[in-house]
Amino acid sequence: MASMAAVLNKTPFLSQQPLTKSPNLDLPIAAVSFPSKPRRRRGVVRSGLIAPDGGKLVELIVDEPRRREKKHEATELPRVELTAIDMQWMHVLSEGWASPLGGFMRESEFLQTLHFNSLRLDDGSVVNMSVPIVLAIDDEQKAGIGESKRVALVDSEGNPVAILTDIEIYKHPKEERIARTWGTTAPGLPYVEEAITNAGNWLIGGDLEVLEPVKYNDGLDRFRLSPADLRKELEKRGADAVFAFQLRNPVHNGHALLMTDTRRRLLEMGYKNPILLLHPLGGYTKADDVPLSWRMKQHEKVLEDGVLDPETTVVSIFPSPMHYAGPTEVQWHAKARINAGANFYIVGRDPAGMGHPVEKRDLYDADHGKKVLSMAPGLERLNILPFKVAAYDKTQGKMAFFDPSRPQDFLFISGTKMRTLAKNKENPPDGFMCPGGWQVLVDYYDSLTPAGNGRLPEVIPA
Amino acid sequence: MASMAAVLNKTPFLSQQPLTKSPNLDLPIAAVSFPSKPRRRRGVVRSGLIAPDGGKLVELIVDEPRRREKKHEATELPRVELTAIDMQWMHVLSEGWASPLGGFMRESEFLQTLHFNSLRLDDGSVVNMSVPIVLAIDDEQKAGIGESKRVALVDSEGNPVAILTDIEIYKHPKEERIARTWGTTAPGLPYVEEAITNAGNWLIGGDLEVLEPVKYNDGLDRFRLSPADLRKELEKRGADAVFAFQLRNPVHNGHALLMTDTRRRLLEMGYKNPILLLHPLGGYTKADDVPLSWRMKQHEKVLEDGVLDPETTVVSIFPSPMHYAGPTEVQWHAKARINAGANFYIVGRDPAGMGHPVEKRDLYDADHGKKVLSMAPGLERLNILPFKVAAYDKTQGKMAFFDPSRPQDFLFISGTKMRTLAKNKENPPDGFMCPGGWQVLVDYYDSLTPAGNGRLPEVIPA
Repeated sequence: MASMAAVLNKTPFLSQQPLTKSPNLDLPIAAVSFPSKPRRRRGVVRSGLIAPDGGKLVELIVDEPRRREKKHEATELPRVELTAIDMQWMHVLSEGWASPLGGFMRESEFLQTLHFNSLRLDDGSVVNMSVPIVLAIDDEQKAGIGESKRVALVDSEGNPVAILTDIEIYKHPKEERIARTWGTTAPGLPYVEEAITNAGNWLIGGDLEVLEPVKYNDGLDRFRLSPADLRKELEKRGADAVFAFQLRNPVHNGHALLMTDTRRRLLEMGYKNPILLLHPLGGYTKADDVPLSWRMKQHEKVLEDGVLDPETTVVSIFPSPMHYAGPTEVQWHAKARINAGANFYIVGRDPAGMGHPVEKRDLYDADHGKKVLSMAPGLERLNILPFKVAAYDKTQGKMAFFDPSRPQDFLFISGTKMRTLAKNKENPPDGFMCPGGWQVLVDYYDSLTPAGNGRLPEVIPA
Repeated sequence: MASMAAVLNKTPFLSQQPLTKSPNLDLPIAAVSFPSKPRRRRGVVRSGLIAPDGGKLVELIVDEPRRREKKHEATELPRVELTAIDMQWMHVLSEGWASPLGGFMRESEFLQTLHFNSLRLDDGSVVNMSVPIVLAIDDEQKAGIGESKRVALVDSEGNPVAILTDIEIYKHPKEERIARTWGTTAPGLPYVEEAITNAGNWLIGGDLEVLEPVKYNDGLDRFRLSPADLRKELEKRGADAVFAFQLRNPVHNGHALLMTDTRRRLLEMGYKNPILLLHPLGGYTKADDVPLSWRMKQHEKVLEDGVLDPETTVVSIFPSPMHYAGPTEVQWHAKARINAGANFYIVGRDPAGMGHPVEKRDLYDADHGKKVLSMAPGLERLNILPFKVAAYDKTQGKMAFFDPSRPQDFLFISGTKMRTLAKNKENPPDGFMCPGGWQVLVDYYDSLTPAGNGRLPEVIPA
């Protein structure tokens, strides 16, 4: 890894020359259609960047010249106030992570998502869509909308942020939505308690027009690259393979080992320039997850310490909220990365999983995520790379792939164990995580006051 | 309807010359490949009988010459005893209703069913499969199987009825199965309480070989036509369109109106000989449904009274158990009928629905069934015919399609209302149901003793 340190000053990550996020208006659809470089080695190698779902990236941000007019229109429409999580979904939709979805789901899309985890397009092709991206309203809001076919979506301060057109209002079958998305209706599912239980009994779908690119003004906006931004950056780097790694936790050396090993395998397959998209999730997470701002500091240290090669790594924030819906949600995590140009997706043990909220067991079978992902409709184009299990090899004093022939040599350090160590300011074994990264975690737990509940601290609606 | 009476003696239904059920061994796969009669009028008309899912009907009954040998093999294998409902699913699988499924589901099939309501075949094509067809075993049975790759399935008396080969044993995630299949985990779902709650914590899948055609010896076996039998009969009648009507309730004149109206519409579309497959469900039903034997008596009277035309109607029993899983289950009901040769499927209001077991509302939105069915993967080939609402028109004294311009003229007679009338030996309005059919219902409720629980009375494992 020492050789990696030499290229550190080339990192786009918190370096002197940060990747500035191009406003979406500078990126017309045509700019994201990459020239295809026909090249095929062995069966699995594909050429160029993978096409977005549905063929083109569906961006929903109003062009600069029309914003003034649209904002005026919005002031004259019935209003629906968005929650912080609604705003995150609006952000997701606006940049085309859910392409070809053109707005909050209407009932036909909602039903297809619940029952089939996919949408059939007009041309008969199928795209994956496993989590409902819906907007709930209550009886009072519904009454306020009346017969209008358009509504203005407004932020918590009442400022219009979007217009929803050709709307459809339909029942919000909460119990059924929860059961079919999570495979349980047990009380205590974080996203459900945060965003569904107390939400309205109606859903409103329609075509979305977002009035401005979404900003959070939290010092991290420059890392919020849209799919179009990412495609531009990946093209600039000449990527001939892009492998995405979704994470919502601090990066330890086991993750790093996996990512560098994946790059090695892709080079062996014949790719010349595989690029890692290290893609921490930036939307809602549950209270005991490490908040985004601290995770970003930790990721910075990991890159500074040369654990990952900045030349072949793009670090960016994925704006989606987290469902913790295991095999259902991992499909969303993978599908969204296709839209950002990734054609390889690394899937771990129990992706997007958590403990059962009321029973003493994991909510999902640890292997179901990768199995479901490998069979999911609409993801046939994506190469799924199952996570090899890494653990601390006591004989080598570092993280290594688990060798089942000598289990006694390996130490598994769970997330809970890691958090406990950091809270107690204890150190993990040498080689588990770079010291700078570990210190960030210690500092984070040190910063927690008894009053802090840790929920959404970094989210400031634009 | 009077003209129908003239052809009564041609009915195959309980007539002097009943349709004898051909043993499956007389129907090699080739016999169900119907000659294609290229003929195309307007967009929707198709030629010949629709092909089974996956291209050919997968029948799983051992050929006569090999039965003796297979039965001997079965005696030497670990044994798994089947419940009455397991036997019904074995029956379903054996005749190819679930084609191309080759046995109780392995985990990859189970997961695809739960998440996608469909299975991807090796050639990349997709078939619908919305309800899990699985076999549960408990810890003790699992231990008894040990390392064997084959098991014998035995009936309640210990007689081998099938062999399951190349078995896979995997966890039975009951809560998740229930949540994803029913969209609720509320206590009181009839199939769940009957067949899942107390079932084992493991599922066993594999390739099924059924040792003999399944018989119930209840006087109704001759109406249990397999998909191959039905295809033979439909071909014999020269059907150029087959429209299936699933039911688990007595037939009233509103149903009859719908079926005759459907035939009229198909003739208008240019079909020359549309045949109705009137297909009552014969497997497990909940305690307060009318049992199969009484329903069959009632259907007989309806045909005798000339309400339906026996010349253009095939009455047969669909051997599946009932889930009451609404939009999920209606896909299974439709898919199975493709395998029997139906290319049109009539879907009603709230198909396979029921009241919520603990809340004062229907479990499913009444329109979701037809919406989900119309979008379901693998059912693109099937023409979905939404049920028009029929009600009792007081001005005409008969069942008629509801006219929303004069709602005051119509009387809706719910299933509950119908049952209450029959239990109290009261008569419904003239024209609601033929008198002979109504009398069967009155007799049924009369026959109920306080001790009878009504569950599965007609099921006698072969």
